[in-house]
Amino acid sequence: MATVILRENGKMREKTLTMDTLNPQVKAVEYAVRGPIVTKAGDIERGLQQGQKHPFTEVIKANIGDSHAMGQKPITFLRQVVALCSFPELLNSPSFPEDAKQRARRILQGCGGQSLGSYSASQGVDCIRQDVAVYIEQRDKGVPADWDNIYLTTGASDGIVSILKMLVSGQGRSRSGVMIPIPQYPLYSAAISELEAVQINYYLDEDNCWALDINELHRAYQAAKEHCHPRVICIINPGNPTGQVQSRKCIEEVLHFAYEENLFVMSDEVYQDNVYSPDLQFHSFKKVLYEMGPEYFNTVELASFHSTSKGYSGECGFRGGYMEVLNLDLEVKAQLVKLLSVRLCPPVSGQAAMDVIVNPPLPHEPSYLQFHKEKSAVLGALAEKAQMTEQTLNTVPGIKCNPVQGAMYAFPRIFIPPRAVEEAKSLGMSPDMMYCLRLLEETGICLVPGSGFGQREGTYHFRMTILPTTEKLKVLLEKLRDFHIKFLKEYASLEEPKR
Amino acid sequence: MATVILRENGKMREKTLTMDTLNPQVKAVEYAVRGPIVTKAGDIERGLQQGQKHPFTEVIKANIGDSHAMGQKPITFLRQVVALCSFPELLNSPSFPEDAKQRARRILQGCGGQSLGSYSASQGVDCIRQDVAVYIEQRDKGVPADWDNIYLTTGASDGIVSILKMLVSGQGRSRSGVMIPIPQYPLYSAAISELEAVQINYYLDEDNCWALDINELHRAYQAAKEHCHPRVICIINPGNPTGQVQSRKCIEEVLHFAYEENLFVMSDEVYQDNVYSPDLQFHSFKKVLYEMGPEYFNTVELASFHSTSKGYSGECGFRGGYMEVLNLDLEVKAQLVKLLSVRLCPPVSGQAAMDVIVNPPLPHEPSYLQFHKEKSAVLGALAEKAQMTEQTLNTVPGIKCNPVQGAMYAFPRIFIPPRAVEEAKSLGMSPDMMYCLRLLEETGICLVPGSGFGQREGTYHFRMTILPTTEKLKVLLEKLRDFHIKFLKEYASLEEPKR
Repeated sequence: MATVILRENGKMREKTLTMDTLNPQVKAVEYAVRGPIVTKAGDIERGLQQGQKHPFTEVIKANIGDSHAMGQKPITFLRQVVALCSFPELLNSPSFPEDAKQRARRILQGCGGQSLGSYSASQGVDCIRQDVAVYIEQRDKGVPADWDNIYLTTGASDGIVSILKMLVSGQGRSRSGVMIPIPQYPLYSAAISELEAVQINYYLDEDNCWALDINELHRAYQAAKEHCHPRVICIINPGNPTGQVQSRKCIEEVLHFAYEENLFVMSDEVYQDNVYSPDLQFHSFKKVLYEMGPEYFNTVELASFHSTSKGYSGECGFRGGYMEVLNLDLEVKAQLVKLLSVRLCPPVSGQAAMDVIVNPPLPHEPSYLQFHKEKSAVLGALAEKAQMTEQTLNTVPGIKCNPVQGAMYAFPRIFIPPRAVEEAKSLGMSPDMMYCLRLLEETGICLVPGSGFGQREGTYHFRMTILPTTEKLKVLLEKLRDFHIKFLKEYASLEEPKR
Repeated sequence: MATVILRENGKMREKTLTMDTLNPQVKAVEYAVRGPIVTKAGDIERGLQQGQKHPFTEVIKANIGDSHAMGQKPITFLRQVVALCSFPELLNSPSFPEDAKQRARRILQGCGGQSLGSYSASQGVDCIRQDVAVYIEQRDKGVPADWDNIYLTTGASDGIVSILKMLVSGQGRSRSGVMIPIPQYPLYSAAISELEAVQINYYLDEDNCWALDINELHRAYQAAKEHCHPRVICIINPGNPTGQVQSRKCIEEVLHFAYEENLFVMSDEVYQDNVYSPDLQFHSFKKVLYEMGPEYFNTVELASFHSTSKGYSGECGFRGGYMEVLNLDLEVKAQLVKLLSVRLCPPVSGQAAMDVIVNPPLPHEPSYLQFHKEKSAVLGALAEKAQMTEQTLNTVPGIKCNPVQGAMYAFPRIFIPPRAVEEAKSLGMSPDMMYCLRLLEETGICLVPGSGFGQREGTYHFRMTILPTTEKLKVLLEKLRDFHIKFLKEYASLEEPKR
């Protein structure tokens, strides 16, 4: 019911905006990464600061891929360039290296009035878009990249939502369907809800290290065709929350499928620098498409996304990112630019941060050694923590964790005893939500329940980041093990032997 | 028709995304501030650089409120704080003043891992939200402000779209209607198109310095009730593109009207520091609502918006802003936070810039004098240019310009001879678009046609910023006068005497 206020004149005044009158698409949105459990963690944290007693002294937030918040230090060179752009008087300071100054001067020359405070063009600063194109060509061993296809964005999320927004149309059975992996990063399901598109789930194969199975794509597509018009396939590689790195063969299969079924391909590649398994490597969808030949490369519509937030820089707060969009119809492209122009431009300091990531110091430049050292330290530590997380989790009875091949997350499967499942249901919450809430309350560890990402019916998971410092991660994993064993004991029933 | 490509196997492959399959709401969006005329200006600019001949040597862009691009210098203190936050090693540098360091330390303490590179909370960094609340209290002479009602945003646009998104629901006659001024800033019409809400025009009174007329509000509301459910009224004060500053009495009338008709009030106050007429002052909707008594202050839902982009700082590229939202239903508030959390957070460097604007140096602090000098210089120059623009335009036959009381724009009415109107119609464009295109081609001056903002049928205008340097603005106004006189002569017909 609407909230009603009695006015002095005796007439009623209702609130204009109530749960009844709220946009139903907004109501439908879910975003677990910052959901109720994270709100609760914040409450507990404030309570601790005010001297409240808990069975722990610190909340450990492993719910979100926020590297710096977990203690990772910024890359010096990147911050030097941003500081120089922000306060160009520093260009006269001898304490900044020449290569950082050269980057900053070039970026400023691309800005109106040579100021970071000007709006950039809607697609971003020209010279940064050019640097992105050069970066992509080098990454993809010479596959051509046209800077006209590059759009700088406010983090990757902004680009993903913009492209999805373009693709949603039709009503009823001709409504646009969007294929997303399950488990998925909940930005996708949230955007699909908001846009009233149809979500088409294709399940990743947990038994095969969360690999994408082409037969499952066909199944999902055929089933969806009955009630909507599948138009887009989204891939996250390396996977979030699942951490798998896709094989070249698998990518080729996906692209062939998209080609055959006239699907727009959206490849979320924000973890392209986060590959830890020494026998795996990142393949961009763009490069594989090129290698499949002109019949594919000149036709398949492909948008790929990158960001300043992940990789080795972890600069989430700057909200930098780019997308490369291939084979877009020319008139549609003008529409995309128009759509982006309403929001004027992505933050220019985020664009500057993106520039450093695609245009880092070269071996002959003064900042190269330090840059390289810092980058390797971050990626090395992540690789170590990825392995430690997988190995430790797999020692716990009732937890099974696939290798964390890439990205920043483990997404282990957890056994939840039937009695706990029943109890959760009686409380009106998903069993893994109850599990994570209990974990938070008893240990201070904040994870996100698997139900926030999607999972096969009857299976339960959580997502945890591998970002805490090695020491803290060890503590986290030990506490988690103890909690899990206690939880299993508590809910053990006669039917199933205690492990 | 969809673009069709013949595949090697003989089957057809269509483009997935064509003008036929594009989201029709995206197609419906218009945004003149960066429309075709600006694209054309960019083309001409590039042509000039490549040595193409034009009847001018420089494009003067007076189409967008982009201060730094027009040569305005950043406020030193603001940039010092941002640079310190970006590269905290500078906190040890003796060349930065202590008050800037103190601001930077405080902001960094509010950031996860004390880094600008962490995600902030979805509503923004706590201590910056607190500073905003203190600022509002001081601005509004003690009217209480609760930082829990403050949301930091990615420029004001982001906040405006988020609030509108919440408010759109219903179908057919119960679809949400949004009242906007005409002329308006086209973000509003663009967002309304994208959200498929119903746009309700209320016309500002050009003969009365673009004042808002309460009778016109009633007329528009009653007419709209026949075909939609009016739920929101948007006000831009000081006005964009119209430059008027609303009187206290008028604001009270609007708030009373909103109270009576259960409307949500959105007051776009990004130009609150840009008031030039010495006998006028800015009144915030919040303050007036408070002064109307608790019956109003405790009930009317009000969102007001501010930004780093305008005022005296002109920091558009940082995409900083905030909104204060009053009397929001508590459950709805949780929904708003959820919606914002999907985009994670506003850019943290933009939040830092916002902090400086609400928390500038105090009289006893070392940066006070320089800050004050820089601020006064910017606002003084703008006031001078506002007057010069109005006065010069009013010397031109066939141009009539209201006083530029505030904001950054003149929106003069231009007489377009009937023969020119006919010619434009035969070319399928609005007459003021033809006028502005000719102006651009002949003089290099880039303005936005009034049709991009809305205007009464049969009247024509353009929007020009007052941002070029005084010298350049003089040149612009002279060229504009000569062009207009030539244009009138060219299209003069026997029926109307030449002026």
